[in-house]
Parts: sequence; C-alpha cells; structure tokens
Amino acid sequence: MPKSIKDQLLENSILMERELSNCYPTNSCAHNGLLEAQRYGLLGGGKRIRSFLLLHITKMLGGNVDAAIPYACAIEMIHASSLIHDDMPCMDNDDMRRGKASTHKAYGETLALLAGDAMLIKAFEVAINNPHCSSATNSRAVKILTQCAGDMGMLAGQALDTVPSTDNISLEDLIKLHQLKTGQLISASAQLGCLAAGIDDQDEKYKALIKYAQNVGLAFQIIDDILDYNEGKRELNTFTSFMSLDEATRYAINLTEMGIDAISSIDDGTLKSLAEYLIKREY
Amino acid sequence: MPKSIKDQLLENSILMERELSNCYPTNSCAHNGLLEAQRYGLLGGGKRIRSFLLLHITKMLGGNVDAAIPYACAIEMIHASSLIHDDMPCMDNDDMRRGKASTHKAYGETLALLAGDAMLIKAFEVAINNPHCSSATNSRAVKILTQCAGDMGMLAGQALDTVPSTDNISLEDLIKLHQLKTGQLISASAQLGCLAAGIDDQDEKYKALIKYAQNVGLAFQIIDDILDYNEGKRELNTFTSFMSLDEATRYAINLTEMGIDAISSIDDGTLKSLAEYLIKREY
Repeated sequence: MPKSIKDQLLENSILMERELSNCYPTNSCAHNGLLEAQRYGLLGGGKRIRSFLLLHITKMLGGNVDAAIPYACAIEMIHASSLIHDDMPCMDNDDMRRGKASTHKAYGETLALLAGDAMLIKAFEVAINNPHCSSATNSRAVKILTQCAGDMGMLAGQALDTVPSTDNISLEDLIKLHQLKTGQLISASAQLGCLAAGIDDQDEKYKALIKYAQNVGLAFQIIDDILDYNEGKRELNTFTSFMSLDEATRYAINLTEMGIDAISSIDDGTLKSLAEYLIKREY
Repeated sequence: MPKSIKDQLLENSILMERELSNCYPTNSCAHNGLLEAQRYGLLGGGKRIRSFLLLHITKMLGGNVDAAIPYACAIEMIHASSLIHDDMPCMDNDDMRRGKASTHKAYGETLALLAGDAMLIKAFEVAINNPHCSSATNSRAVKILTQCAGDMGMLAGQALDTVPSTDNISLEDLIKLHQLKTGQLISASAQLGCLAAGIDDQDEKYKALIKYAQNVGLAFQIIDDILDYNEGKRELNTFTSFMSLDEATRYAINLTEMGIDAISSIDDGTLKSLAEYLIKREY
C-alpha cells in the first residue's frame, strides 16, 4: 500500500529538519546569538510543503534527490527568513509563530532582523555550493531563487500586503498579492525540482508543474483565509471578504482541480493527494 | 598628468550612479513603493569606495571593466542594503544618512525592511546574471559575496556591534568586529576585482590585494572613530576609547603603510593614493 500523503509529509519534515540543521553547525557562524536566532526561526516546525513539492518533483521525474536537497534547503530558508521579518513589529507584529514565541520575541528585534538577512544570504550560499550539480545548474537555481523571491516576486507581494487593513483593494489585486507573496516561492519549488532532475523550462512537464504549483498555491491561500474566518477573524482584503464561505471553498476546489488536471499525465498520485490534503487541512 | 584620486573617485561615483540606477528601471519591480525605497536607499550618495576598488583592480590587472561592473553593483547593493537595515530603530536608530532622511524615515519602517531584503536579493541577481562572464565565474562571484556578507562575514560583524554601548569589549574583539563588519565587504571587492580579471585566489597578486584591502579597511574604521571623537562623540568600543588620538592615528598610518607595501610591486600609484586619501579624509 502506498504511503499516505500525511506520512510522506511527515517523513519530509524529518528529513528537512536534519538537512537544514546540518546547514547550521556550531562553527558555521561567527556570532552565537546570530546562529541561535537563525536556528530558532528555521527549525522545529513548519509543514515544509515547498521542500516536499520540490523533492517529490525531482524524484517523480527520475532525478537524484541528493541533487535537489540543497535547493530544498534554500527554499525553506528564504521562506523562514521572510517569516522572521514578517512577524516583526514594523510588519505584522506577531508575537507567536507555530505555537512558540516569534524570533524577535525570543531574541530581540535586532537579532531577528540580522538573522533574517543572514538566512536569506545562506539560502543563496547553499544553492550555489550544491556539490551534486554543475555550476551552470547552480547558477540557474540562483537565478530562479532571485527572480521568485525578489521585488518582482515574493517581496513585491509582501509590499502589496502592507496596505493598511482599513483600505479596500480589488479582488484582482488580492489575487495578484498572493500569487506574488506565496505563489512565487511555491512556483520556484516546482522549477527547482525540475532543474535538479534535468528538465528544462521548454519541457511540457515543466509547464504543467508550474501551472499546478500556481493553482495549488492560490488555493492554499484561500483555505488560509477560510480557516481564519472560521476562527472568528473578519478582515478586509481576504478572500472571505470578497465572497461567501461557500464561494471561497468552491473557488479553492476549482483551482485545486485545475492544478491536478494540469499534471494528471505525469503524476503518480502524490501531487493529487497533496493538493487535496492542502484544501482539506484544518490548520 | 595623472588624475588625482579625488577626481578618480568622483568619476567612479558618476559611473556607479548610472549603473546602479540602470539596475532599477521603472518596470523592474512589481510594487512602486518598494522600487522607490530601494532607489532612495541606494542612489544619490556614498563614496563608492568598494566599487572603485573593485573596478580599479580589474583594470589594473588588465581585465575588462564591463565584466566587473555587475559585481561592483552587487557590492554597492549589499552595502546599501546593510545601511538601510542598520539605520532602523531596532538597530542604530539613525534618522539621517548622508545628509538626508534615512530610508525608514522617508518610506516607513515596513518598506525600509522590505527594501533592504529586496536589494540583498537584487545583488545576487545582478551578479549571477553578469552577461560578460561565464556561469562558472558568476557562480564564484556569488560564493564570494555570500561568504563575505553572511553570518561568517559582514552580518556577524553587525551582530557583534549590537553589544549594548555600556558593555566593554576587548580591543581584540573590536578589531574582529570591524574586520567582519566593514573589512569583509572591502575584501570581497578586491576578490571580485581579481575574479573579473581572471586572476585566481592562488595568485600572489590576489593575496597581496586581499592584504591591502584588509589593512586599508581597518584603517578606514579607525579614522571613522577619530572623526567621531573630534566631533565630540565619546563612545565605548571605539578605537579612541582604547587609545589616545595620537596612538589611534599612528595605528591607522601603520595599517595603511602595510597595505601599500603589500601591493607596491603591482600598484600604478592609485591604490597608494586611495589608501592615503582615506586616512586623510575629513568626513
């Protein structure tokens, strides 16, 4: 019997915890507090969806997972770095993250700011030094990461998200915001998974996987808003402020189905299970 | 008659202003505020010592300056990004930078934080996409940048610098702090200048230039402290808190002489003039 998607995600979390931890050995940093703040913000939690998607795609396309692991670490580092900065008082001002104090509450704002910066740099360091790929491939990986994370990607989404919560934006802008803020890094995961397997961006499989990543990424965000709504949060500029719960749910299901359709001819079932798991999740 | 070092630095500032501005055309960013905050923090000022050193070394070693310009842009971006974050309230809390409002005073803390992040990513993007060098060379450039800027380099120095100003550190730690905080990026400039000229790290010229960069970088910081002292600032953990003005000046001169000695056989006079200019500067 094939492993359930839940078990596969759990296995991936354990693998990534070890691999990410190995990127930060005791002597890897010239300042103890800066090392600890990074480890605190990076390790011990998270669903690791991005790295799971990346590594699974490499495997599914017949590539070597070892070659993909440094790219998976880089993606999780960029994501964690953005969360550390996102939680800071000048951004979302969140005291808690994944059931524990956010990094700036645990280590102070100064170290949180520097830890986010250092982790962002480490992501590129780990990707460019990937010992299993050629420098041309690693160079391509850094290009994908800079493009998807930078001011045409994730960071532009974060900037769009700083609209005061009393200002209305359009549904179109809300979709664009999330396509940038979360979608781009999920798309980067799919791109890097293909890259590590030697599949280039002209390949139909590549295009299909990007389409899957984009649709599932947006559905993920809609579910986030629904979960928040069900917890009693009634905020502007969320999918639940533009449509009813039923409509939002249907929208997420539609996106998920389009994503699954795009990859049906190459999927072994796991990507379908992942997409379905993500819209059924309860946290 | 050869151009004075002052004129050469001015020419470089004009060149770099144009090149850096070209890295941020109007359509280069998916969020206007994020674009403007980056341009504000990057353009219109700064001595551009790092890019001058980098480009001059490439020229001096017979390399193609065009090949070095993207690396010079990357270095100035990493430097400017660190200044944007450094000025924020949770770091040095400086309202002014180079005679104008610091980025967070002009654009708010949220955009300043994101602009620093985006500019850090842009630095790697510009370096890895350098059209004049092979992907192996660009890959090596990114390795140098991540190593010198990350948590074993500049960021470790910034973290060490967050010691409360009431705590004493040793002179040894103060030197280490500055070797990391400013020295590493100046050393990266020398390394990238060699790289763009095709001189590898086993070459004696390479080693001599790194030694020059390290010594001149530290002297630069001592002069900073002396200038601050002369403006009436009496702070702990500065070179002027460990030694008299005369001793600090002699220390800076010694370092400068050692730096000049290291490169005397390859220098056309410019690196000597630069080092002397930097310890004689009055701002």
